Amino acid sequence: MPADHLIREILRSNDATGVIISHLPHIRWICGFTGSTGLLIARANKFNLLTNSIYETQAALEVRGAEVNIGSHPMAEFARDEGLVNSPDKLIIQPEYLTVGELTCWKTTIPGISFIPIENLLNEHVAKKSERAIAGMRRAQAISDAVFKVILQYVQPGIRENELAARMNYHHLMLGASTMAFETIVASGSNSALPHARPGERKLQSGEPLLMDFGCIVDGFASDMTRTLHLGEPSNKFIRAYEAVQATQERAISSASAGMEVSTVSQVAQDTLKEFGLDEFFVHSLGHGIGMKVHEWPRITSNSSALLQKGYTVTIEPGVYFPGEFGIRIEDTILIDSNTCERLSTIGRDLLVI
Amino acid sequence: MPADHLIREILRSNDATGVIISHLPHIRWICGFTGSTGLLIARANKFNLLTNSIYETQAALEVRGAEVNIGSHPMAEFARDEGLVNSPDKLIIQPEYLTVGELTCWKTTIPGISFIPIENLLNEHVAKKSERAIAGMRRAQAISDAVFKVILQYVQPGIRENELAARMNYHHLMLGASTMAFETIVASGSNSALPHARPGERKLQSGEPLLMDFGCIVDGFASDMTRTLHLGEPSNKFIRAYEAVQATQERAISSASAGMEVSTVSQVAQDTLKEFGLDEFFVHSLGHGIGMKVHEWPRITSNSSALLQKGYTVTIEPGVYFPGEFGIRIEDTILIDSNTCERLSTIGRDLLVI
Repeated sequence: MPADHLIREILRSNDATGVIISHLPHIRWICGFTGSTGLLIARANKFNLLTNSIYETQAALEVRGAEVNIGSHPMAEFARDEGLVNSPDKLIIQPEYLTVGELTCWKTTIPGISFIPIENLLNEHVAKKSERAIAGMRRAQAISDAVFKVILQYVQPGIRENELAARMNYHHLMLGASTMAFETIVASGSNSALPHARPGERKLQSGEPLLMDFGCIVDGFASDMTRTLHLGEPSNKFIRAYEAVQATQERAISSASAGMEVSTVSQVAQDTLKEFGLDEFFVHSLGHGIGMKVHEWPRITSNSSALLQKGYTVTIEPGVYFPGEFGIRIEDTILIDSNTCERLSTIGRDLLVI
Repeated sequence: MPADHLIREILRSNDATGVIISHLPHIRWICGFTGSTGLLIARANKFNLLTNSIYETQAALEVRGAEVNIGSHPMAEFARDEGLVNSPDKLIIQPEYLTVGELTCWKTTIPGISFIPIENLLNEHVAKKSERAIAGMRRAQAISDAVFKVILQYVQPGIRENELAARMNYHHLMLGASTMAFETIVASGSNSALPHARPGERKLQSGEPLLMDFGCIVDGFASDMTRTLHLGEPSNKFIRAYEAVQATQERAISSASAGMEVSTVSQVAQDTLKEFGLDEFFVHSLGHGIGMKVHEWPRITSNSSALLQKGYTVTIEPGVYFPGEFGIRIEDTILIDSNTCERLSTIGRDLLVI
């Protein structure tokens, strides 16, 4: 559904006069603006993007389907002074993307407005990727795949975690990424047992695992993948845990398609790890939506009520972590289709021993 | 003032029973936790850090002066189930760091609690850097200075903006930065007129300016600097604008010391650019606080009521932008002292023609 139809539908069904869109990726989805400060006021017949003078030139180049208003004072005052919001408006807000302080500012600046908080206002719509978005995500993943192959040449005992991370980021940007999608994780040995480890001075050693979690932004769309390798011969405990994580990812991905509940996919992963007796070592959610940012709605958890739909892109990333010993995670970004799904990465998942 | 004394003082003066700290840098400032999910409930005699199982191992290593509670459901339910919050508590919240949705969740999960929103609850305290913080910021700036010197070797016609950015990031990490503090800006030619330009495929050409804005994180503290160079002979318009920006930064920095109003420093910059007839081309604020993150309180603007204090670190970054032609910005991070201030960078500001 085009954004203007969708907004009219939302206004009608909630008996509202306007919507304040405060979540920047949603603003970008509606009008193309990619700056870091902005607010969109959407009416049935008119959209206004409010941003400050830093973005005047950029907004003129990017924004489609909305009038651009440039100002520098607090957004509520700015909207009032431009005559964009008036008492007795009934405005829908995004409660998970507006702070208590911002709402207070709106209420005190323009008394008499009613605010209607609606969670998940646009998430389902934004999660369904356009052809252009999917093409962007494929390009981003293709770059990450290429970098992974390059980086394998440097994986050897003695190299530091942060040198590998530096090289990984460098090659992503040289191949056309505009930035990394998040802080690259390169974790060796027992550091791999920290799900959100940061690369440090630690040198890779033979007989230890190496976990790398990385992704980039290309044309405004993100990639995200994780592989866990082993330098030298792995222990039986490591091999068994690796097989469990690999099987878990395989089964969870096989179960994912349009119409499937997110919670069911998460449960498939839990059940598989339980068969291996390892479910207690899986300490995070199975994955997350990904698109313009690396972490988007929906989270793939057992208590989510979200349904997968055609065009969603999500990560599937089971892992097990033994504090002080090692951790293993395998992650791919998948594209949901009608009866199936597709991994965007072409990098294999079999255990790589270097 | 130590954090526990400060919290007791805040509780007493607001007649409250506890504080919910929801801003992650403030949580880190109080108890050392650096994860990306967490909430601190501070009582007169006890601090509890709530986070999820991803951070169990990391929190055990990092957190000092707070008990760690590990759980995965919404924070309000988690706090209730652990018995950490009870009706009829009177809890202070940080309105600029709590969403409308989160507050609604607290209110519906634990009826009978009063919430007291206080803006800028800890900002003044966190902005006064400890010796350790200042040492971290010096290390971060020293790495950025070293990288700037290295990168000058690559500045020549034909090199792409994104290759320079890739090399800049690479050298930062190789010299010990854990990550970049923000997306590196490398803007050549007319791209420099976009204050938040992103590095792209554009190749540097002789007769054009090159603007580079970059910084890194070392030991959890940030650097931030900008320099604008010129390839080949600059025009008279460019030279004159450069002199104006350089003089503006010089005078603003000379005016900055403990006790000075942020708005006065901002006005000094406005007035200086006005003398050069260029104030209308200065489209952003003069600077911002910097510490654990690149953008912290206070913003250096004409409508701020903040006072500079000894130990604050802020950026001073005047710029002028001529859309379609060129932009110039010179930025340094400064450390405020009693009657003066210190630039953390040792890189000069005179126009560099390459």
